[in-house]
Amino acid sequence: MLRINGDRLWGRLMEMAQIGATIRGGVCRVALTEEDRLGRDLFVKWCRQLDCQITVDKMGSIFARRRGLEPNAPAVLMGSHLDSQPTGGKFDGALGVLAGLEVIHTLHEANVLTQAPLELVSWTNEEGARFSPAMIASGVFSGDFSLDYAYNQKDNKGITLEQALEDIGYKGDAPVGNRDYKAAFELHIEQGPILEAEQISVGIVTGVQGIRWYTLVLKGEETHAGPSPMRFRKDPMQLLSRLLPELYALVEKKGQDAKITIGHIDARPGVRNTVPGEVRITIDIRHPENDRLAELNKETYDLVSSLNGKFGVSASLEEVWHSVPVQFDEKCVGAVRDATKSLDIPAMEIVSGAGHDSVYLSKVAPTAMIFIPCKDGLSHNELEHADKNDIINGTNVLLQSVLRTANEKESTTKQ
Amino acid sequence: MLRINGDRLWGRLMEMAQIGATIRGGVCRVALTEEDRLGRDLFVKWCRQLDCQITVDKMGSIFARRRGLEPNAPAVLMGSHLDSQPTGGKFDGALGVLAGLEVIHTLHEANVLTQAPLELVSWTNEEGARFSPAMIASGVFSGDFSLDYAYNQKDNKGITLEQALEDIGYKGDAPVGNRDYKAAFELHIEQGPILEAEQISVGIVTGVQGIRWYTLVLKGEETHAGPSPMRFRKDPMQLLSRLLPELYALVEKKGQDAKITIGHIDARPGVRNTVPGEVRITIDIRHPENDRLAELNKETYDLVSSLNGKFGVSASLEEVWHSVPVQFDEKCVGAVRDATKSLDIPAMEIVSGAGHDSVYLSKVAPTAMIFIPCKDGLSHNELEHADKNDIINGTNVLLQSVLRTANEKESTTKQ
Repeated sequence: MLRINGDRLWGRLMEMAQIGATIRGGVCRVALTEEDRLGRDLFVKWCRQLDCQITVDKMGSIFARRRGLEPNAPAVLMGSHLDSQPTGGKFDGALGVLAGLEVIHTLHEANVLTQAPLELVSWTNEEGARFSPAMIASGVFSGDFSLDYAYNQKDNKGITLEQALEDIGYKGDAPVGNRDYKAAFELHIEQGPILEAEQISVGIVTGVQGIRWYTLVLKGEETHAGPSPMRFRKDPMQLLSRLLPELYALVEKKGQDAKITIGHIDARPGVRNTVPGEVRITIDIRHPENDRLAELNKETYDLVSSLNGKFGVSASLEEVWHSVPVQFDEKCVGAVRDATKSLDIPAMEIVSGAGHDSVYLSKVAPTAMIFIPCKDGLSHNELEHADKNDIINGTNVLLQSVLRTANEKESTTKQ
Repeated sequence: MLRINGDRLWGRLMEMAQIGATIRGGVCRVALTEEDRLGRDLFVKWCRQLDCQITVDKMGSIFARRRGLEPNAPAVLMGSHLDSQPTGGKFDGALGVLAGLEVIHTLHEANVLTQAPLELVSWTNEEGARFSPAMIASGVFSGDFSLDYAYNQKDNKGITLEQALEDIGYKGDAPVGNRDYKAAFELHIEQGPILEAEQISVGIVTGVQGIRWYTLVLKGEETHAGPSPMRFRKDPMQLLSRLLPELYALVEKKGQDAKITIGHIDARPGVRNTVPGEVRITIDIRHPENDRLAELNKETYDLVSSLNGKFGVSASLEEVWHSVPVQFDEKCVGAVRDATKSLDIPAMEIVSGAGHDSVYLSKVAPTAMIFIPCKDGLSHNELEHADKNDIINGTNVLLQSVLRTANEKESTTKQ
């Protein structure tokens, strides 16, 4: 069975990590900066060395195409992103791009042509560190955002995304979207602790969990901590003391896939000897199943409304944003599963906790993802690390998934 | 029975409130500012019109003395403070000073000389709004702070308290402390809602509750809200969800006199989709009885230590400051009680929730306080208001308390 070259891939990962390298061993290659340009240039050079045809779309996403035996059949897509957080790591994004390149290099070296063509993408501005929102280029690709909306996003110096694309010479001519894919695969580090804890080398990603963001506002009455007896108070913190345990409990009841995070809390005026007049907390609730997430949504509203008015404090819940759960394409997930079996690599099914370009892509193409463990679950962190052996395993799974899918008979019928 | 002149007192309160008057009807007469100087000058002028002898001590506190039949006997002291919060009200402090002046005016007009002399004090910087700590002048008077410590306190422009005293011409020559008092009475607005709720005109203040300030630090592990399952998290907010209700419950068990305030809370880094690495809260616990407060202290430490380590989160409690409960002098409290009875004014015993100059003074002189209601319990607020009828009642109680105490036989034996 064909295998990728781990040393070559590792070498390219380390070479790419030199562009924007930080002294703590991380990477600062923020979207559409000079470092991003250097990273793109290197990537394009490598692709051309393997006879790939380069297309840059109007969002600056780079598509490298390797011809197939059926040159006009829908391609099989690989890829991820080359931009990083300001204090990011070497593997988040770059792994998925360079693993795709390694797959092409392996096929090139072995003189293997697939039935369907292959494409390798590097999406613009996945991280959203400079231009909001994150995953903006794949979002335009899927039709979730208009090109105009994306072009007018500004960084904190007031530079538009369109201007920044022009500045680094990566505002392409190709229309965004309307590329027909047979399937798409993205290899990525897990950005979580599960695979490492389970000592499993490869995660078969079946989907991405849904997310609901709320702001809870508790309004009482500001008063001095001294004279006012408890029975006269309207203390939002006292209401919170009733609400918090019930909130955690209702999420816990939905099982291990349910998650709640209270990341921000603010008591106003925030003075030690003053009962706060208002307390605000953010609530982030996630679940991979739409029905369970909908139940959690209803139960959270019910809880808040059942406590509204207690201790003379009003409680109101506002949904700020939500993202529905994504189930990846069964056939693509099956291809990844089969690949792990044929390679005899320890694997498990896993749901992605974070968002990825594949979430948008899955709306317009059959999509799946492959995860490998990252040390201590750390990501968006200069200490981010992935084991070389896991990288080799993950990339071999990518290779086999792509080979099987690209060579499937069905491709001819689709042509 | 001798009665004070309510219109005259009200007129002086309103005249004093013109100095530093704010457009919202409040007062900004912060300690040792030009407004404070003008307020002091007016007060001194009024005292001199009533033949009082003025002494200014090295802390700038002003003592106005009215002679008694036994001129060298220990005096009976009245008074409070003339400084205000930056957005303070007309009555906090000024009431106690001008009510004392009204007592003297009433006696002056009636040609009544008491056995013991009377003194009326206006303490410097009670509010602590410009120079920290609050009640600094009475604290030097009682020996709790050294003069040197007080002189070197700086405002936020770097001006020392000593310099500020010199700037407004109120750095006096008299030593601070070592004035011998038979008794001391301070009339003050309650700064709380109890008297108003009970529809009682006068509070016989039996003491000041004790206060304990803590900072609770919960340390977990910062992680992304998405990928990490609940069982892998070290979420300080989850520990807080267990701790908060138990904290409120243990205070509630100590009865209606126990109070807890959580005024400030901080989750770090404070990002919506990140499990906080650390959560800090302030805890303010109060009780009028020393034993109960000591129990609350122990139980709070026990609670924190019982939860330390749960969810992988460390919990540590640090005491930041404490103030022991004060029981006012029984005889002085009795004099106030007798005065309310003889005047047939609806009165109840009450414990002060906030600190006052009388707390320090009570360490060196037999002391008691008289409270009157304030509207909606509001204080340190431009909307602070006290009813004229309650002001008259409170000042008549002050007059009778002072008369009884100053004329008591005992004073001769003490001479």
